[in-house]
Amino acid sequence: MATLIEPRVLKGFRDILPSNEIERSSLQEKITKVYRSFGFVPIDTPALEYSEILLRKSNGETEKQVFRFEDNGKRDVALRFDLTVPFARFTAEHESELYFPFKRYHLAKVWRGEKPQAGRYREFVQCDIDTVGSDSAASDFEILNVMKAALEEIGVSNITIHVNHRGIFNRFLEKLGVKEKSEDILRSVDKLAKIGKEKVKEELIEFTSSTEKADLILKYIEGSSDFDSTLDMIEQMAGGENEDSKRLREIRQMMKASGIENTYVLDPSITRGLDYYTGIVYETFLNELPSIGSVCSGGRYDNLAGLYTKTKLPGVGASIGLDRLIAGLEQLGKLSKKGSYLDAEIFCLDKDLNIHYQRVASLLRKQSVNVEVFPEAKKMGQQYQVAEAKNVKYGILISADQAEKNVLTLKNLLNRQQHENISIEQAAKIILEDK
Amino acid sequence: MATLIEPRVLKGFRDILPSNEIERSSLQEKITKVYRSFGFVPIDTPALEYSEILLRKSNGETEKQVFRFEDNGKRDVALRFDLTVPFARFTAEHESELYFPFKRYHLAKVWRGEKPQAGRYREFVQCDIDTVGSDSAASDFEILNVMKAALEEIGVSNITIHVNHRGIFNRFLEKLGVKEKSEDILRSVDKLAKIGKEKVKEELIEFTSSTEKADLILKYIEGSSDFDSTLDMIEQMAGGENEDSKRLREIRQMMKASGIENTYVLDPSITRGLDYYTGIVYETFLNELPSIGSVCSGGRYDNLAGLYTKTKLPGVGASIGLDRLIAGLEQLGKLSKKGSYLDAEIFCLDKDLNIHYQRVASLLRKQSVNVEVFPEAKKMGQQYQVAEAKNVKYGILISADQAEKNVLTLKNLLNRQQHENISIEQAAKIILEDK
Repeated sequence: MATLIEPRVLKGFRDILPSNEIERSSLQEKITKVYRSFGFVPIDTPALEYSEILLRKSNGETEKQVFRFEDNGKRDVALRFDLTVPFARFTAEHESELYFPFKRYHLAKVWRGEKPQAGRYREFVQCDIDTVGSDSAASDFEILNVMKAALEEIGVSNITIHVNHRGIFNRFLEKLGVKEKSEDILRSVDKLAKIGKEKVKEELIEFTSSTEKADLILKYIEGSSDFDSTLDMIEQMAGGENEDSKRLREIRQMMKASGIENTYVLDPSITRGLDYYTGIVYETFLNELPSIGSVCSGGRYDNLAGLYTKTKLPGVGASIGLDRLIAGLEQLGKLSKKGSYLDAEIFCLDKDLNIHYQRVASLLRKQSVNVEVFPEAKKMGQQYQVAEAKNVKYGILISADQAEKNVLTLKNLLNRQQHENISIEQAAKIILEDK
Repeated sequence: MATLIEPRVLKGFRDILPSNEIERSSLQEKITKVYRSFGFVPIDTPALEYSEILLRKSNGETEKQVFRFEDNGKRDVALRFDLTVPFARFTAEHESELYFPFKRYHLAKVWRGEKPQAGRYREFVQCDIDTVGSDSAASDFEILNVMKAALEEIGVSNITIHVNHRGIFNRFLEKLGVKEKSEDILRSVDKLAKIGKEKVKEELIEFTSSTEKADLILKYIEGSSDFDSTLDMIEQMAGGENEDSKRLREIRQMMKASGIENTYVLDPSITRGLDYYTGIVYETFLNELPSIGSVCSGGRYDNLAGLYTKTKLPGVGASIGLDRLIAGLEQLGKLSKKGSYLDAEIFCLDKDLNIHYQRVASLLRKQSVNVEVFPEAKKMGQQYQVAEAKNVKYGILISADQAEKNVLTLKNLLNRQQHENISIEQAAKIILEDK
């Protein structure tokens, strides 16, 4: 016999065992349900693409992390590292087959060769939504609304969504006369939480050559007491009412009309990187665990697919980082791992009744009961163990005598309560009422 | 501005547009639902694995087709080409964390650099189920039962599942005294449909050096008039009753007890390749389109994870080839492409009512109506076009006057029937009753 190969996965990759995968599937199904309920439609794109397409716009950091290779046909290919670049390529390629505004969702795996660390994997799932072809307050608001609804659907309602508008910030920097330094300033502001106010101030003084301007920028990104007064303040600091502040004000009114305004704060320190985003931007934090970072982020961009088409496609989108979110929920003890798709287990008391057990199972399934038959007459202890591992609530026991009379014993495996000698229909009724 | 990059996917890969992806998702969700209803549990494994693990057992053909490369950490890695090998590795690696019999389902993408041809892609979805840790008639039957139930759930009920038992065939070849030639014989028999009876006979004469033996093998693989008489015949030709024929007889009784016996034929010419399978094997054909080949195949093996563990894990499994099945359904005109997750579209008649539209949408969603707001006051023709592209059944129209009175006009976009000035609750009721 050949030597055994050690069964192991690659560094940074992982298997998902059933109790976790049931939970993960449930979260993905709920998020999908909410995305659908707002009119987003699904697409699919290949996991593998031309490197040229995936990497043109990326920075050096991404290139280092991407799984890139030459395929058997000598093509330079790479595994996608996000769902946004493939979506841009998709939109350009199928422009004439689509309608606009086009609203798509896509839940799928992406791959990045990042340094593995707690809660960070080289293969992970992103849950993206984007609306392209509409530059409107309604589209902006809708994304913010879906984010909240999706997280709520999976039981994550204790959140704060931090919103900002890049356009207002740009106007402010222009008014301050430091527009040519805006990249540096944005990069510095982005580090506020990480390096602290004093350090940021030092940097800002360096970039603006003015303590007064640095102080004004710090004042701007600190905001005021609530959403509306912060909006008034930054609008004023940016030179008074403008298209961008009007847009943000309209979005705010929509939040209020929908009764969800308390979830959102206006946080002028949120910038979300340097290029790409041009309008509103947002990040979502778990109030009980802000330290794990944003679990859902995004923003408005004015040109999704500029690398592939001359058509200018403005859009707005967001992405839930499922794996980071799950890591957070695990830390908070909010994952049950007690999920089960199975309603009942028919135990095998007697090998000779196997055929009868199959018949009972098929009758129960016809009545929408999810049921399995234990396939062999193993010791009852062992059969119970499997049922327990699968978190099945009901056990069904049928002796030869009961098989003849076409009745069964239904046992609630949690509280040990038994219904003896009931019919298959009665059993189905009890199980379904309890579902 | 930089030159545009032509947006295109790799040869043999493809995008899935929304109308198709809605259909695909629906099929996958239905198959998943059936798998769950029989007690199969989900797992997940990485798309990328050590080449050593994926390729040890494979033949040269697989090696040529696999996407294999060196990652940034100099590891020899490959994209999985099926879900069985990763499952074997998974079972060996997590043996102590699992319970047996272990029944798992896994719907996921696999990659093979095959020559692209009609209905064949380099990235495709497999829908696998396996039960490991039980060598029993109940487990064998269950897989056959799930296959039928899953295909029925997606509207594919006009099928025939061809079943055979490798053990009985082996006994027959042994009795015939040609056991040492069984690999050649199996390979020849496997080509029956492709090269015809005469050619197979020529080959068999060559392998057995006997016209009589060749005729007996042909007689065996042709079978008799129905399942039971064929079983009697091959049992007899294999030397009389034995464990394998008893197993197949028990499986047959379970089919009858469950009232599904008519879907299965005993087809002694089915072999499913050379090594690996040791018990029952099966292939599924669409009665209206047998030419596309088997859409769901599998069988029993006696040692799933022998490359990675000394524990012998017998099992039985099947895999639905979703993409081939979809290609078949398309040819038969059985895919609707008219699916929609959206119940209603709130048209934008008046930009100033945007905030009100959002409020109405959120009230409707609270009542489980899937609804989107058209985000801009575009021409009505354009708004209707988008609604049509999305296959939305209901349109909601609200004028300023109606907004003030908190009523709306609900329009059935298919038959143009209108309900004017009804309340939001009334609209929700009509839409949901129609769902």
